[in-house]
Amino acid sequence: MTLAHEFYQGKNVLVTGGLGFLGSSLTIALVKAGARVTIADAMIPLFGGNRFNVEAVKDEIEVRIQDIRDPEPTKAAVVGKDILFHIGMQTSHVDSMTRPLWDVDINCRGNLVVYEAVRHHAPQCHVIYAGTRGQYGTVGKTPITEEHPMHPTDIYGANKVAAELYGFVYGKAHGMRFTSLRVNNTYGPRHQMKHGKYGILNWFLRLALDGDTISIYGDGQQKRDYNYVDDVTEAFLLCGENAEKTVGEAYHLGGDEPRAFREVAEMVIEAAGSGHLELTPWPKERKAIETGDFVADHSKFSKTTGWQPKTKLAQGLPLAVEYYRRFKERYW
Amino acid sequence: MTLAHEFYQGKNVLVTGGLGFLGSSLTIALVKAGARVTIADAMIPLFGGNRFNVEAVKDEIEVRIQDIRDPEPTKAAVVGKDILFHIGMQTSHVDSMTRPLWDVDINCRGNLVVYEAVRHHAPQCHVIYAGTRGQYGTVGKTPITEEHPMHPTDIYGANKVAAELYGFVYGKAHGMRFTSLRVNNTYGPRHQMKHGKYGILNWFLRLALDGDTISIYGDGQQKRDYNYVDDVTEAFLLCGENAEKTVGEAYHLGGDEPRAFREVAEMVIEAAGSGHLELTPWPKERKAIETGDFVADHSKFSKTTGWQPKTKLAQGLPLAVEYYRRFKERYW
Repeated sequence: MTLAHEFYQGKNVLVTGGLGFLGSSLTIALVKAGARVTIADAMIPLFGGNRFNVEAVKDEIEVRIQDIRDPEPTKAAVVGKDILFHIGMQTSHVDSMTRPLWDVDINCRGNLVVYEAVRHHAPQCHVIYAGTRGQYGTVGKTPITEEHPMHPTDIYGANKVAAELYGFVYGKAHGMRFTSLRVNNTYGPRHQMKHGKYGILNWFLRLALDGDTISIYGDGQQKRDYNYVDDVTEAFLLCGENAEKTVGEAYHLGGDEPRAFREVAEMVIEAAGSGHLELTPWPKERKAIETGDFVADHSKFSKTTGWQPKTKLAQGLPLAVEYYRRFKERYW
Repeated sequence: MTLAHEFYQGKNVLVTGGLGFLGSSLTIALVKAGARVTIADAMIPLFGGNRFNVEAVKDEIEVRIQDIRDPEPTKAAVVGKDILFHIGMQTSHVDSMTRPLWDVDINCRGNLVVYEAVRHHAPQCHVIYAGTRGQYGTVGKTPITEEHPMHPTDIYGANKVAAELYGFVYGKAHGMRFTSLRVNNTYGPRHQMKHGKYGILNWFLRLALDGDTISIYGDGQQKRDYNYVDDVTEAFLLCGENAEKTVGEAYHLGGDEPRAFREVAEMVIEAAGSGHLELTPWPKERKAIETGDFVADHSKFSKTTGWQPKTKLAQGLPLAVEYYRRFKERYW
């Protein structure tokens, strides 16, 4: 019997943001697949880094508390690595608008520090960059493909575009092996649960579990698709093991069942067995960066790697509820 | 008889990079149109800032030697301005590859400093941003329209994309009045003539005037279009006076007669009456960021403003030759 993801057996892998939501889920999957995993995480307050996220594998990984903006530690972290899952970034839309220069510092300058380190000190390393649906901003007819023009509505989205472009520039000019995987709305265990600045579905879960009110702006009819974290983790693994096809490409993920925001909130309340829904008018600063419907056609990635989103909301939400009930004191 | 560009009579205008090539040409045209012009220029060595460029209008303008990255002077410069022609940036493709973090500092962070200043201290000011054909990178079938996907081949191009996106983000979120005018290859008087890192056609002019050899990489068959600086200046003026149509839009300029690189070099040699042409193999670092054919369809801008490129190469090159012959000691 062959191991799932046998490709990773003995591979040296670096995960930036590895103590966060996606990074820790990926780290656990990589350890299971036999990889030698190093985490680099700056543990910037409220970003989502949480030591408990990797509790189950803590003796099998190397954890480096360091910032991607620091060239020397970043260089040290990439040396000898075969694959870099580059997930550690600033991810708040709202914070990028109130602190735009700070977003540039992390998401533009910081990314270049990482790419420079790879270029000079790990030239064979495959960099898999966590892009975002926020790069597209307001889109036309959905579902969209990867070639859809990018009109981001916030500085975060603009800088994620820039950082992805840097990767392809380094690919062409310096031979850096680079793939961008643009992540859609992701939910599930190991997310930060202290604020609602990102991971809105997880934030709804917290509100519902606390018996609080979930406020939806406007009529809540904007359609989105959602991915359970394990499906996204699977996508990153497949991206790495299909490097001969994925290097130099950008992909987005997507769900099977686009749903209105309001319906999703109702499903969260049902899964939690508590919480209330209310509709409220749009606050001005949120309305300005709201993107409307967003549904992504994931067929390019599925055709290339065989990936499919397996976990429907009706299955994933109860799994998330169970996790946060069990480990509430670690996240609340 | 009405003045040409009467709109600018008594207007308070800021030109960043106003001592450089495009900025100084625009400054002279603005003064002629009756505007009150302030220049902000950092005079970074080799960027092209040259006091002689504005010699003819020096007593009618305010010149501030300051860097867009410095928030306090930038704030002071924008207060009370009606229009900001934002031209002062890092513009070398090659330097952006050797010093990518520096390019981010000027072209990402610096631009945000400018937009923050406008947002908070000159909220009615119309910001006209000098974009670049470099944002598109390698393109498909030419001529291209403004909606063509952007795949820049260097960090400069990526950051120019980002800075343009910031402008539209600030437009939507903060009501900033923003237009991007993506400039194509521009040539003519007042360019820096000390190096060939940008303004390649002007660099060819210097080589030819010095009786030196113009080296063209490869076969020189890549097609480009070129604009004489006065036509580009005219485009910026029209952009400002048609604000009711241009705010929130991106345009590119373009020429009337796309020509092969080699043919243009031959025309330069003819205009100068000296110089030699040689074809040499591509240096690796140049080949990596080379974009091939680039011809832009300028009909969107022409329909909106009535602009047309008036000066053909056969007219513009002799004008440039005459200027640099006359003022050689100011530029060589």
